[in-house]
Amino acid sequence: MSEPTLVKSKLICVALNDAEQLKRLEAIFNDAPYKKPPTEPVLYYKPRNTWSQDGAEVEWALDFEGKPVDAMVVGASLGVVIGRETCRVSEIEALETVAGFTVVGDYSLPETTYFRPDIRGKCLDGSAPVGPVVSQLSAPNSVEVVISVNGEEQSRFNYANLERSVETLISKISYIMTLQPGEVIAVGFAGDRSPVAPGDRVELSIEGIGTLVNTLGAKA
Amino acid sequence: MSEPTLVKSKLICVALNDAEQLKRLEAIFNDAPYKKPPTEPVLYYKPRNTWSQDGAEVEWALDFEGKPVDAMVVGASLGVVIGRETCRVSEIEALETVAGFTVVGDYSLPETTYFRPDIRGKCLDGSAPVGPVVSQLSAPNSVEVVISVNGEEQSRFNYANLERSVETLISKISYIMTLQPGEVIAVGFAGDRSPVAPGDRVELSIEGIGTLVNTLGAKA
Repeated sequence: MSEPTLVKSKLICVALNDAEQLKRLEAIFNDAPYKKPPTEPVLYYKPRNTWSQDGAEVEWALDFEGKPVDAMVVGASLGVVIGRETCRVSEIEALETVAGFTVVGDYSLPETTYFRPDIRGKCLDGSAPVGPVVSQLSAPNSVEVVISVNGEEQSRFNYANLERSVETLISKISYIMTLQPGEVIAVGFAGDRSPVAPGDRVELSIEGIGTLVNTLGAKA
Repeated sequence: MSEPTLVKSKLICVALNDAEQLKRLEAIFNDAPYKKPPTEPVLYYKPRNTWSQDGAEVEWALDFEGKPVDAMVVGASLGVVIGRETCRVSEIEALETVAGFTVVGDYSLPETTYFRPDIRGKCLDGSAPVGPVVSQLSAPNSVEVVISVNGEEQSRFNYANLERSVETLISKISYIMTLQPGEVIAVGFAGDRSPVAPGDRVELSIEGIGTLVNTLGAKA
């Protein structure tokens, strides 16, 4: 709550929006209880206690006994910043509702399942830096999202590989809930999260927007 | 966003906190992918577009084609209103962090699964009235939550049947994320949601707090 943030009111994240990752997980999804891959976007929230900003330290998480956890991971996504009240907008009009684009980081515990939502792993205090700025992009569906840790590239994901486009997601989500100015949608994290360690310097970059830089805290 | 609400910053709901319901669902949970019932509280959020208040109309939901849905249901829970910044509080101190108690309504689409989170069904605009007031309760674990529709009692649930107590939940959630003053936790909905129809007048009551009254909108 104390960190200034670009986000107003809601930060919605889209999971499993990497076409290749979905293909890789097909066998899991074809098992019980679903017996088929998701037919609609899979969404999760990063609540207000997670919101943070460029330059902030990301606390190393503690377990229920108060001991530092063994592992944390980071994902990066293009963030769509909503510019006006948006309810049931079509794909064709979807980009007209956008104020601009930013970078969203999602620090979390490694996922152990693709079913029951991992509220604990996704809701760590300060785990969702957003920024550094809001920019205009002419082609949001062809950006490259790059994750570097201590200066070394760990992951590079091109939005041409999204299962659903930015326009499709804005439209679909606006049919599920009304969106308000300043709300942010993280439209697609690269398939695999990158592991991080205490003290790591993490850079999440999207050309045309900039680089969101955060440092992991020490093991408390 | 336009409705005044008691909620500040976050409304967290606890699912599957009815000991009897969990027992009834045991066979489902013992199947893939978990092969066991949940070992930690199952949480979901009602985001800001859902927040509403006593007396407000609850819109009848539309499907993706813009047609009124066939069915909606309502659940009711005791709402814990947090009174101070709360991080990793013990069960013994948990009630000291509480500013008071209120009633939380949760209008939604009927649930079709206990696995993948039903963001669509749970995030309808204006579907989470909270109120009518914040009261003190000396024994929050023995309240009765009553749902009445058009003057007829549909459900009565005593908190003695909670799987986890109010104190346990506050403590557990505060280990997952830092809580802030004015945030609300809906600690336990009665096992079965009650069906509602367009135009219904719904009363959600907890003795010692009062009655949260809302009316369902017409089929648009």
